Amino acid sequence: MNTTGQVTLPIEVGIDAEVKELMQRLGADAVRNSDGTELPELVHSLAAKVYSTYFPARGDQEWAVANPDTTTHLFLQSPRVPALPGQDALTINVMEGYFADQVAPRTDVDLTRYWQVIDRTTGSVLAPEQWELKGYREVVIAQPQPGHVYTVGFLARQIWDATQMYNYITNNWQDDPTRYKARPYDVRLQKVWDRVLPQLDSWLEQHPEVDVVRFTTFFYHFTLVFSDRGREKFVDWFGYSASVSPEALEAFEAEYGYALTPEDFIDEGYYNCPFRLPSKQFRDWMDFQNRFVTSRVRELTDKVHAAGKEAMMFLGDNWIGTEPYGPRFAETGLDAVVGSVGSAATCRMIAAIPSVKYTEGRFLPYFFPDIFNPEGDPVGEANVSWLAARRAIVRCPLDRIGYGGYLSLALQHPDFVDRVEQICQEFRDIYAAADGKAALTAPVRVAVVNAWGKLRSWQTHMVAHALPYEQTQAYVGVIESLAGLPFPVEFLTFDQVREGALEDVDVLINVGQAGTAFSGGEQWADPQLQSAVRSFVAGGGGLIGVGEPAVHPANGAACQLSDVFGLDQEQSFSLSTDRYPVVDPNHFITDGGALSVDSRGGARFWTIIDEDVRVLAMEGTSVQLAAKTYGKGRSVYFAGLEYGVVNARLFERAIFWAGGAQEQYEATLHSPDPRIEVALYPGSKALVYNSSLEEVSALLVGADFSGQVTLAPAGFKWLDLEP
Amino acid sequence: MNTTGQVTLPIEVGIDAEVKELMQRLGADAVRNSDGTELPELVHSLAAKVYSTYFPARGDQEWAVANPDTTTHLFLQSPRVPALPGQDALTINVMEGYFADQVAPRTDVDLTRYWQVIDRTTGSVLAPEQWELKGYREVVIAQPQPGHVYTVGFLARQIWDATQMYNYITNNWQDDPTRYKARPYDVRLQKVWDRVLPQLDSWLEQHPEVDVVRFTTFFYHFTLVFSDRGREKFVDWFGYSASVSPEALEAFEAEYGYALTPEDFIDEGYYNCPFRLPSKQFRDWMDFQNRFVTSRVRELTDKVHAAGKEAMMFLGDNWIGTEPYGPRFAETGLDAVVGSVGSAATCRMIAAIPSVKYTEGRFLPYFFPDIFNPEGDPVGEANVSWLAARRAIVRCPLDRIGYGGYLSLALQHPDFVDRVEQICQEFRDIYAAADGKAALTAPVRVAVVNAWGKLRSWQTHMVAHALPYEQTQAYVGVIESLAGLPFPVEFLTFDQVREGALEDVDVLINVGQAGTAFSGGEQWADPQLQSAVRSFVAGGGGLIGVGEPAVHPANGAACQLSDVFGLDQEQSFSLSTDRYPVVDPNHFITDGGALSVDSRGGARFWTIIDEDVRVLAMEGTSVQLAAKTYGKGRSVYFAGLEYGVVNARLFERAIFWAGGAQEQYEATLHSPDPRIEVALYPGSKALVYNSSLEEVSALLVGADFSGQVTLAPAGFKWLDLEP
Repeated sequence: MNTTGQVTLPIEVGIDAEVKELMQRLGADAVRNSDGTELPELVHSLAAKVYSTYFPARGDQEWAVANPDTTTHLFLQSPRVPALPGQDALTINVMEGYFADQVAPRTDVDLTRYWQVIDRTTGSVLAPEQWELKGYREVVIAQPQPGHVYTVGFLARQIWDATQMYNYITNNWQDDPTRYKARPYDVRLQKVWDRVLPQLDSWLEQHPEVDVVRFTTFFYHFTLVFSDRGREKFVDWFGYSASVSPEALEAFEAEYGYALTPEDFIDEGYYNCPFRLPSKQFRDWMDFQNRFVTSRVRELTDKVHAAGKEAMMFLGDNWIGTEPYGPRFAETGLDAVVGSVGSAATCRMIAAIPSVKYTEGRFLPYFFPDIFNPEGDPVGEANVSWLAARRAIVRCPLDRIGYGGYLSLALQHPDFVDRVEQICQEFRDIYAAADGKAALTAPVRVAVVNAWGKLRSWQTHMVAHALPYEQTQAYVGVIESLAGLPFPVEFLTFDQVREGALEDVDVLINVGQAGTAFSGGEQWADPQLQSAVRSFVAGGGGLIGVGEPAVHPANGAACQLSDVFGLDQEQSFSLSTDRYPVVDPNHFITDGGALSVDSRGGARFWTIIDEDVRVLAMEGTSVQLAAKTYGKGRSVYFAGLEYGVVNARLFERAIFWAGGAQEQYEATLHSPDPRIEVALYPGSKALVYNSSLEEVSALLVGADFSGQVTLAPAGFKWLDLEP
Repeated sequence: MNTTGQVTLPIEVGIDAEVKELMQRLGADAVRNSDGTELPELVHSLAAKVYSTYFPARGDQEWAVANPDTTTHLFLQSPRVPALPGQDALTINVMEGYFADQVAPRTDVDLTRYWQVIDRTTGSVLAPEQWELKGYREVVIAQPQPGHVYTVGFLARQIWDATQMYNYITNNWQDDPTRYKARPYDVRLQKVWDRVLPQLDSWLEQHPEVDVVRFTTFFYHFTLVFSDRGREKFVDWFGYSASVSPEALEAFEAEYGYALTPEDFIDEGYYNCPFRLPSKQFRDWMDFQNRFVTSRVRELTDKVHAAGKEAMMFLGDNWIGTEPYGPRFAETGLDAVVGSVGSAATCRMIAAIPSVKYTEGRFLPYFFPDIFNPEGDPVGEANVSWLAARRAIVRCPLDRIGYGGYLSLALQHPDFVDRVEQICQEFRDIYAAADGKAALTAPVRVAVVNAWGKLRSWQTHMVAHALPYEQTQAYVGVIESLAGLPFPVEFLTFDQVREGALEDVDVLINVGQAGTAFSGGEQWADPQLQSAVRSFVAGGGGLIGVGEPAVHPANGAACQLSDVFGLDQEQSFSLSTDRYPVVDPNHFITDGGALSVDSRGGARFWTIIDEDVRVLAMEGTSVQLAAKTYGKGRSVYFAGLEYGVVNARLFERAIFWAGGAQEQYEATLHSPDPRIEVALYPGSKALVYNSSLEEVSALLVGADFSGQVTLAPAGFKWLDLEP
């Protein structure tokens, strides 16, 4: 048993003895500092790799303050303001609701290009002569149409880095005279880049103790805007709004032959969030910035390598343009990615990143006073976090795990340290069982189709990393379930489906709310797409829909694959049609009726349109779960799939059934208890693990094996299945 | 106190003594037969009006059978059938799912005109040479597009009258050799009309005992289609599908200059149900048939009047083209309308019919064995029915009430007869209190806006009369509440709102699911409509939205009046925007927090977009009830409003508040207990009534009056407020 390695600890000054002891107990082989903390002298004597944070686009604040023309920018939209009757001119304060410490309107640019006033009642852009800017933030529309609503889109400087602002405000750094408000600078400007490169050179030279440069992160922050009350106003972990600048926009126009407008970024106020079907303009911009960022990152990683160190990227913060599943990620030259594990899906999102030497998951809880206090329950938090992460790790291992925060706090909770010691060892054992590869996979190849495809692998229905949103929990549960299930999973675009990608797929999944990029919206108006999926299923494929799959009301159906599901969503246009659903939960998917779906928050008002569909669950008149054969293939519908062990098991069985592989499932070692999961490894080894916080005694069946297993909460057991 | 009159009883043969006694006890002054029952000889000696059913378009079955070319017709759609890969030709059996006893495809017509094959994946109509009819029901598409879905629209004869079929099947008349399957005949054919007129002449001559000819009904049945299993398949109480014929379609084309196609009626399979935004073609057809039916009805009523009798219409069954709120109803010459009272809304729908001498409500329960048996609770049913009806009657009185079914059954339940005696007297007292007019109204003029306006007054969100539908209960509750509230109510079209109708309105209501004719769908894309409503509210008007009002996603908002409500429906495009709603139920609408809304089944995911909106109730992240001031006016939003005494009270208070009249409410006699309602009458009289089935002791306040009242379940009390 390998009892050392693959674990990174945060360390701090003044507790050298404890650090050494803890490193040994946990088998840590790497240490790190955090944002704003220093590495102790001790690091030179440790037999461990040393990580250090590095901020390429905000690390040099003295220079940033001296060069205020180098900030990054944002496109922002004013509030929607109605012109009411009896008013004359309409004045819109574009800064209403925004935080003057973070953003400042650019009034020194060509307003006809970088500002736009739009009549949101008609959708038309006002001619520049129809409005004027007064002062630095008031737009006056001389003769508005009474009863119409107007907005102003405008270019603003980002004068405070979003993450540093968040930390500053959250931790009350205003009381600390040593703190400053960090300004981000934009590497698109040659004078910035000419500064960044030598800065890195000298930093590398000055830090021989560092083995791994942990870039935190690169150049453009995801969209994070605060309000005039100093609290979060807008957060899109995938947002590109803060990647703009006049220089970049001009370079774009020169290359692409057309100019982007503020509205191309403001997108009616939705700012091209990932739930929107992406426009051509936005896709072009992403591609443009991805190429630019990739080439700039490569210059940095080349320097890191030349200094004999490794380059690691933190997956978050200023990560825009470095999407790990993007087409050019290998070209960045990065050696590793580290990211926060908030769920099974985010864990697998990190672990499955291609073309890096290793991945590392930063586990919860953080060693921060919010949890590490006499009333907190750090062990409970660690168990919840480990349960989620372990589900993903057995299917696709992280190479390393780590923690963050103040080690001294953790040391005050010996029971927590004991538990982390166990987790670290369990992690290493799982990793070793498959020599760093995944557990054996089931013979059903799964693909999730949406407008983003591979680019947003394991990132669907996310808004702000792993934060929960009531409206998306029923859909994010699909990737949360999949992250811990034994199937090979890929993410396809609608275009790929049109172009024949279903050749290599057994079960296709479409999930989400109607009209979103995840469900597909108007994509489903395309006969070619419909036809590709219909033919796939009729020819023997499986289709699983969750929520409002393929919904784009047209031609007498809400769901454009209603015939495949045998169901449609009732828009109140078919209430006149009588429905006679018969609910019978007795099906392979529901394990003979033993399992019942929880579809809270999912879609409503799905009804049968075909008496051949098998309805497995309903609530009122809404179908919650149904299954159907279609030609040689099968379809399954879930109204929603919030993650839970029962729903995940239902989903697993649905995939096996839709893929026509239910006999393989029965023949493979498994437990009828959905809390108990089984992963098979080469060499007839099996990991049986309890994905609940209850003690479970359960049967194991399949694989000529039959027996009882009793597992502690979150417990596990290795079995040798050799006959 | 007037103890006689305004009551109609069904009577039957063989219980003459009981009939006489009961008529006296109930104060009945009219008697009637029912479909298929005979009036006893007794009628000649009763001092009462005699009603008799009359079936102008199915009464003469011998002739109907001898003239099979005279049936009415329907346009029907086949199932949606996919063309799967590997198939050659696609065969669609158009009769699949239809009942051969009811409908028969017309194969002897010009198939290129009266049949249509449509590719429902592309929406395109196939050229006639792309398909052929084999036999009488199989359409063969020689070369379908693989993966596309097809339908056939076709003209069919209706060979069995829908209501008679329903009665026949429901009552197992197949075991009764005296019963036949009644065929409807179409008065559009001259030879039919030439038969109908003299038939009525002789019937009038042969029935001197009849005072009132109760037409049940006229010519075209609402759409009611049964399935091949002999059960209901499709029911639209407002449906025009069965009003078609080659002759009518040709006459239409000659008059309107364009031809209607099967698809104009089939409407993608939604058959122009009232939830659909009506097309120009459908509106033209309604107008065309309304003129025709009106003129034909007038010929009949002229004959009835010439015979010295009254003409009454039953509101239901074959009522298509005689809409009582239509533009030509006065021209029918009808004296009265009778209809079934299934709720307050249907009661007010009957009571408020203009241009007839009197209206009559047929009350529940029917004297049928399903309720009148040892396990049944006829008194309970009567109470529920009376509670609903009374709410409407105090606001807009019916002129008469009546019952239906087998009197002999009712006589076996003396407690029921006692209760009906009370109800009849209570009804007469309410009627007399205002001399047949409404109770005094509150000073807030309410208008409901939808695509139908006045034509569907008190009929919004209905599918099959008063039958409940889970998906519409949260919206039909609006008219159910309004039917018993003290406001003058009118129903406006969107066009009327555009054209200035809000001049005479204090509070405008828009209610329903997005995309429906009731919410308005694409109507809200019109800046003129938006502007009219915005200006109305800003100028001091009130706007109440229920469910998905004004929702038509465009230009950065789902709800096109989101600024007026201070709310919008989250389409998952704004999840990145942080919301900080503060729920405070303490508001006039919620009576200082004492009332809480129940919005089951209503809209989800409405969020605040303006910090000035007052959120009165939320469930999870969805706003359930909110209020806002906007310019000089006010808006209120309800996620849903299933009828109940608390919701009705909230709605009443919301209307007073939106209309800026909350002080008038406080100053008017009312009870803080929402179960207790008060109607004020001329002469300082007040009716205080308990709209619940619980005994209630409650305060009465307002109008310089203060006191306690205790009312039995469903009880009432007349108060004299004279100082």
